[in-house]
Amino acid sequence: MQVNTRRLLENIERYAQIGKKGAIGVERIALSNEDKQTRDLLHAQMINAGLEVHIDRLGNMIGMRKGKTSGPAVATGSHLDTVYSGGRYDGVLGVLAGLEAIQTLNDNGVETDKPIALVNFTNEEGVRFAPDMMGSHVYAGLADLDDIIASPAYDNPAETIGSRLAEIGYNGDLKPGSIPFDSFFELHIEQGPVLEEEKIAIGVVDMVQGIYWTRYRLSGQANHAGTTPLAYRKDTGYLAGELIHYLGNYSRRDGSKVLTTVGEISLEPNTINIVPERAVFTLDLRSTDAGVLMAVQKEIDDHISARCAEAGITLEQQVMVRFQPVVFSKVMADIVERSARRLGLSTKRMPSGAGHDAQMMASFCPSTMIFVPSVKGISHNVEEYSLDRDVGNGTQVLMECLLSKSMAFH
Amino acid sequence: MQVNTRRLLENIERYAQIGKKGAIGVERIALSNEDKQTRDLLHAQMINAGLEVHIDRLGNMIGMRKGKTSGPAVATGSHLDTVYSGGRYDGVLGVLAGLEAIQTLNDNGVETDKPIALVNFTNEEGVRFAPDMMGSHVYAGLADLDDIIASPAYDNPAETIGSRLAEIGYNGDLKPGSIPFDSFFELHIEQGPVLEEEKIAIGVVDMVQGIYWTRYRLSGQANHAGTTPLAYRKDTGYLAGELIHYLGNYSRRDGSKVLTTVGEISLEPNTINIVPERAVFTLDLRSTDAGVLMAVQKEIDDHISARCAEAGITLEQQVMVRFQPVVFSKVMADIVERSARRLGLSTKRMPSGAGHDAQMMASFCPSTMIFVPSVKGISHNVEEYSLDRDVGNGTQVLMECLLSKSMAFH
Repeated sequence: MQVNTRRLLENIERYAQIGKKGAIGVERIALSNEDKQTRDLLHAQMINAGLEVHIDRLGNMIGMRKGKTSGPAVATGSHLDTVYSGGRYDGVLGVLAGLEAIQTLNDNGVETDKPIALVNFTNEEGVRFAPDMMGSHVYAGLADLDDIIASPAYDNPAETIGSRLAEIGYNGDLKPGSIPFDSFFELHIEQGPVLEEEKIAIGVVDMVQGIYWTRYRLSGQANHAGTTPLAYRKDTGYLAGELIHYLGNYSRRDGSKVLTTVGEISLEPNTINIVPERAVFTLDLRSTDAGVLMAVQKEIDDHISARCAEAGITLEQQVMVRFQPVVFSKVMADIVERSARRLGLSTKRMPSGAGHDAQMMASFCPSTMIFVPSVKGISHNVEEYSLDRDVGNGTQVLMECLLSKSMAFH
Repeated sequence: MQVNTRRLLENIERYAQIGKKGAIGVERIALSNEDKQTRDLLHAQMINAGLEVHIDRLGNMIGMRKGKTSGPAVATGSHLDTVYSGGRYDGVLGVLAGLEAIQTLNDNGVETDKPIALVNFTNEEGVRFAPDMMGSHVYAGLADLDDIIASPAYDNPAETIGSRLAEIGYNGDLKPGSIPFDSFFELHIEQGPVLEEEKIAIGVVDMVQGIYWTRYRLSGQANHAGTTPLAYRKDTGYLAGELIHYLGNYSRRDGSKVLTTVGEISLEPNTINIVPERAVFTLDLRSTDAGVLMAVQKEIDDHISARCAEAGITLEQQVMVRFQPVVFSKVMADIVERSARRLGLSTKRMPSGAGHDAQMMASFCPSTMIFVPSVKGISHNVEEYSLDRDVGNGTQVLMECLLSKSMAFH
């Protein structure tokens, strides 16, 4: 039984037209009007595929395909939202590959023992509303729904998750997490260069790196750049430069077990001839080791705090995200590996460097992920691309995993 | 003959209400509607003071007070525009002190030999339209009027100097520079801490530091922060941090003869979990020595260029401003010093760290500046403040300079 790769690719192309950005990119921010358009399209396609569609209070969409028994469903899915200037695969592939797998089962008249569920999680990217992986976070019972519903947009605090859900008509009635899952598989592009470099077809994801996000806000004093001798300055721009350099060097040390990225910086007043009064920057810190992550974050915080004190600069620190590393079910990873090998595809056990809905679902049911190669490792970028062959391989593996896990003996 | 300090302070307060920002600050960007309001007020006050008002094609306002002879006027003035979140003295003081000096001459029925001119120069700050010191730049014949008229706003290229001048009704007919000046005095707050620290009443400004403004634009590659090993990154944020640190340290070296400030930074896409594809930052480099300025700028450019090449990052460099140091007329500075000493005020010969209209006017006629202390040296900030006593002293000195220079024997 073969998935229809051509049909899948046409469907990916169709979704990529919604919020199209540049030649092949996409910008479809969670709960935007573009997000609504893809949700409406998915809703119609779920119905066409014979699924019973449920929308929960956070806008998560769950399409149910009946099995011979009525127990928990073998679930798959991902998210339809993207980052700003994002790509056409991140998230979307996991949803549409799940739909394709179900359509293939339909085409072949296959009735599984367990039901199968296809999920589109709300706001995985978290670029406009915190936290990211929001839908799966709440689905797995890891956050309070009412708090999350009140989460304001970064760029317009008058808008909240709740107001946007109502606006686009995806404020459903179902309590998140009330549909139980037997297990959860997520197909995703790797978003890194490892599989392509090592010429591996399928990444078997056995864990997800821990992710700590922190925002540092330095307050000094605005002064005229030409008239203020250095001794009188409280120059937050200069100190931010030093600290960004320090943070970058931290993971570039020999033997470092962490990855550091400063992705956001802003200065106030951000004027060429004014010593910046305020500098805000973020740290994205990752490691596969929970202990290392905690220790390194503390060392970094101590250093930043000491440097600010020395410079007479006030520091505020905002803890944004603390996701510990997640180890996936060995049984689930083994299913992926076996399915791929049966198809003659090369595999590699690997951690995920990025956060994904599957890491939240791992608290809810046995979960794992299937990675396919990203060309040049480029992701979160309009240039994001994966070869048709790799997309097809991943979808075939996903279908076989769903089939395998939804049969009674599993 | 004494200036009326109370009347002057009330007038400063009146202007500070237009574009008021915070308790005592002001935001009145050049050619904004707030700028128009102060221009209209000044226009009315010039007429009330018996001045004949001329508006040139760049919106510079020149109020002429007749003398016994019709030769070139002894001129004074400054600018009414401010930076974003600016103060109530920077620029405004020089215009209103000039007006007060003229009103004092009127009150006392003094007729000078030479005419006296009061000037409000357009867009001294240059925060929305380049270059700064625009009005005096063109008045002194140092830039092409038509090029300047076409200068677009940083934040909205559809708006130009020309369109804003027409919008606020200050696109006059006069050719800039067609009214000749005998000399030019500019009273200004120091905008630095030196006079206050050394308890000096009057700064006699004998030169202006040279100012080089440069914008650096680094282009690398956007990538996912969690999945892209360091070896695959072209991280412009990290390199910008290193370079901002380097630039700050440059002027902090022992014996450094320059002042460096990085006031603006922006990243793209500026998202916490994306390696920045683009980093843009500015350098404000100042020195009193023209040779040092040129040599240091070259050394900095070579360093930045080499570091970008090593990191595989593309560099574009935009030269924004190259103002050489300006030495003021010794005769003019002597007049200021003598006037202050006659009043029993302490004086100090000093360079100006900031750029001012007077440095442009120095190419047009003998020019100099009078500085009064800034509390804590704070400027370009809503907290900018100068003591009433110091404001009064400076205005008295200005009046005596105008009187002295406009008498036949000078």
